[in-house]
Amino acid sequence: MSTKINELQIIENLRSIAGRDSLGLLDDCAVFGEYVITKDVLVAGVHFFPDDAPYNLARKALRVNLSDLAAMGAEPFGVLIGACLPKDISAEWLNDFNRGLKADIEEFGVQLLGGDTVFHDGALMLSVTAIGKTSKPLLRSGAKIGDNIFVSGALGGGYLGLQNKLKGRGDLRYELPNPRIELGIKLREIANSCMDISDGLLLDLNRLCEASKVGAELVSAQIPLADMAADLLEQISGGDDYELLFTADCDAVAGCYKIGKIISGQGLKLDGKLVAPKGYVHN
Amino acid sequence: MSTKINELQIIENLRSIAGRDSLGLLDDCAVFGEYVITKDVLVAGVHFFPDDAPYNLARKALRVNLSDLAAMGAEPFGVLIGACLPKDISAEWLNDFNRGLKADIEEFGVQLLGGDTVFHDGALMLSVTAIGKTSKPLLRSGAKIGDNIFVSGALGGGYLGLQNKLKGRGDLRYELPNPRIELGIKLREIANSCMDISDGLLLDLNRLCEASKVGAELVSAQIPLADMAADLLEQISGGDDYELLFTADCDAVAGCYKIGKIISGQGLKLDGKLVAPKGYVHN
Repeated sequence: MSTKINELQIIENLRSIAGRDSLGLLDDCAVFGEYVITKDVLVAGVHFFPDDAPYNLARKALRVNLSDLAAMGAEPFGVLIGACLPKDISAEWLNDFNRGLKADIEEFGVQLLGGDTVFHDGALMLSVTAIGKTSKPLLRSGAKIGDNIFVSGALGGGYLGLQNKLKGRGDLRYELPNPRIELGIKLREIANSCMDISDGLLLDLNRLCEASKVGAELVSAQIPLADMAADLLEQISGGDDYELLFTADCDAVAGCYKIGKIISGQGLKLDGKLVAPKGYVHN
Repeated sequence: MSTKINELQIIENLRSIAGRDSLGLLDDCAVFGEYVITKDVLVAGVHFFPDDAPYNLARKALRVNLSDLAAMGAEPFGVLIGACLPKDISAEWLNDFNRGLKADIEEFGVQLLGGDTVFHDGALMLSVTAIGKTSKPLLRSGAKIGDNIFVSGALGGGYLGLQNKLKGRGDLRYELPNPRIELGIKLREIANSCMDISDGLLLDLNRLCEASKVGAELVSAQIPLADMAADLLEQISGGDDYELLFTADCDAVAGCYKIGKIISGQGLKLDGKLVAPKGYVHN
C-alpha cells in the first residue's frame, strides 16, 4: 500500500541532501557569492485561477519570486521562466503574457536570462527562477531577544482578495503582489532577521522564530489589516500578502508597522495568549 | 478567433525582451560573472513516460541540465528543483526520487540549493535550474571556417531507446543520459564553439552554424551511430543523445569523432548534398 505524503515532509526529506549554500532550505533564497537565488512554481487551479488575465499573471509569477529576493535584502538581477502551456493556448494569450513580462522586467530592472517552454495536455504551469545581488543577505535566523517585530504593510489583502476571486470578482490584492524591493535593500543596515509573508503572518513568523530559536509576542491592536472591520485571525493566517516581516533593534522604521516583540522561549503569543501558527498551506 | 503558436515562435518573441547576459537566448546557458545558468522543464507524457522509475527519472531531470552546463565548458555548482506532483503520489515514489537525486548530486559534486513542490490534479512536471562555473564559457557562435566538427560519442541511442520505450521495453540510452562534464571542461582550451545535442545532430548543428554564420559539411561514414546497421538519418535527427557537438582548429580530440568541416555560406551538406536540418521537436 502506498503512503500519502505532504509538502512539508518533502522539504524535510530534501533537507538531508541539501547543499551548504542552501542555508538548510530554511530561507527565502539560497546564497552563493554575491548572489541569491530562488525558484517558485505556480500552477493553475492552485496558485491562480485558470482564467486569470495573462498580463497580470506573468507579473504575479515574477513578483512572488522578486518578493523572495526582497526578503533577502537583494536587488533583482535576472530571471528564467519555465512554462508548461496547454496545447490550445492562443497567440493572443501569449502576447499578453509577454507584454506583462516585459512591463515588469523593465519596472524592476531585471534581465530575462532564459527559460524553457513546453506544450502539453494539462493545465498551465509556470516556474520562475530569480537571481538577486546583495552585499549582506538578510536571514530568518538572525532575530534577537528584545528585537521589535515589524511588517511593511497591511495584512489580509491577499486573503480578502482570494475570497473576492472565489466569488468571481477581480481583486488586484490577490492578482498582483507588490514586492518590497527598496525596503529590503534598506533593511540590510537595519534588520536582524527578515522574510516575506507568503503563507500568513502567524505561520511565517513561527518559521522565523524557529530559525532564530526564539519566541514572539504580538499585539493585535498594532497589526495593520487590509480590513480593520473583518476577522483578525483570518487576515493573519491567509496567504499571498508578500509584505516583509522583519525584526530590528530599533523603535521605528519609516513606512513600517511595529507589531510585537521577540522574546525568549518558543511559540507565538497574541495579546498575551499562546496562539497556534495557523497559515495558508496549499492542498 | 485565436491563433495557434509553436515553441520556436515563443522563443522568438521572448528574444526581443531578453537581457544582455542571456546571449540572445541562443546558447545552452546564460552567463553572469563566473557563473552559467540553465533551466529545463520536463513533463510526463512529453519528455518521459508517466511510469518511468523515479530513481532514474530524478537523475535524468538533473542530467539534461548538467549537459547544458557541459556544453558551456562549466563545472556543475548548484541545482534547484521545482516539482508539480500528482496528488496521489506515494511516499515510496518520492523516496526513490530523492534517492536518485542524492545519487547524482554526489556523483556530479553539485549542491541542492533549493526548490519548490506543489501537489496538483495533473501530470508530473519537473523544472530544474542548474548553475555552473567556468572561467571561459563555450558558445555556439564561435565556429570558424575551416574548423573540424566533432561529436563526443555515438548518436541515435536516444532515438533507438525511445523506440524501445514505445514498445514497452526499458532502455537506459533514453532514460539516463550521460552529461559530458569532464570533456566540456577540457574543451575550454580546445573548442571554438560547442553545444549539446538534445534535438538531433542535424537540427542542433544547424543552430550552431546559424549562431556562427557559417555552413557545415558532414561525411556520413565518419558519423558514429548507436546502431551502424540502422537508418542514419533517423539516428541523426532524433532527440535525447546529450553528446557534445563542437568545432575546433585541430585534427583529433581524444575520445571524440571528427565528422565534418565548417565551411563558408550557410546550411548543411551531407556527403556533398544539401540536407534539411530535421530534428526532434516536441509536439
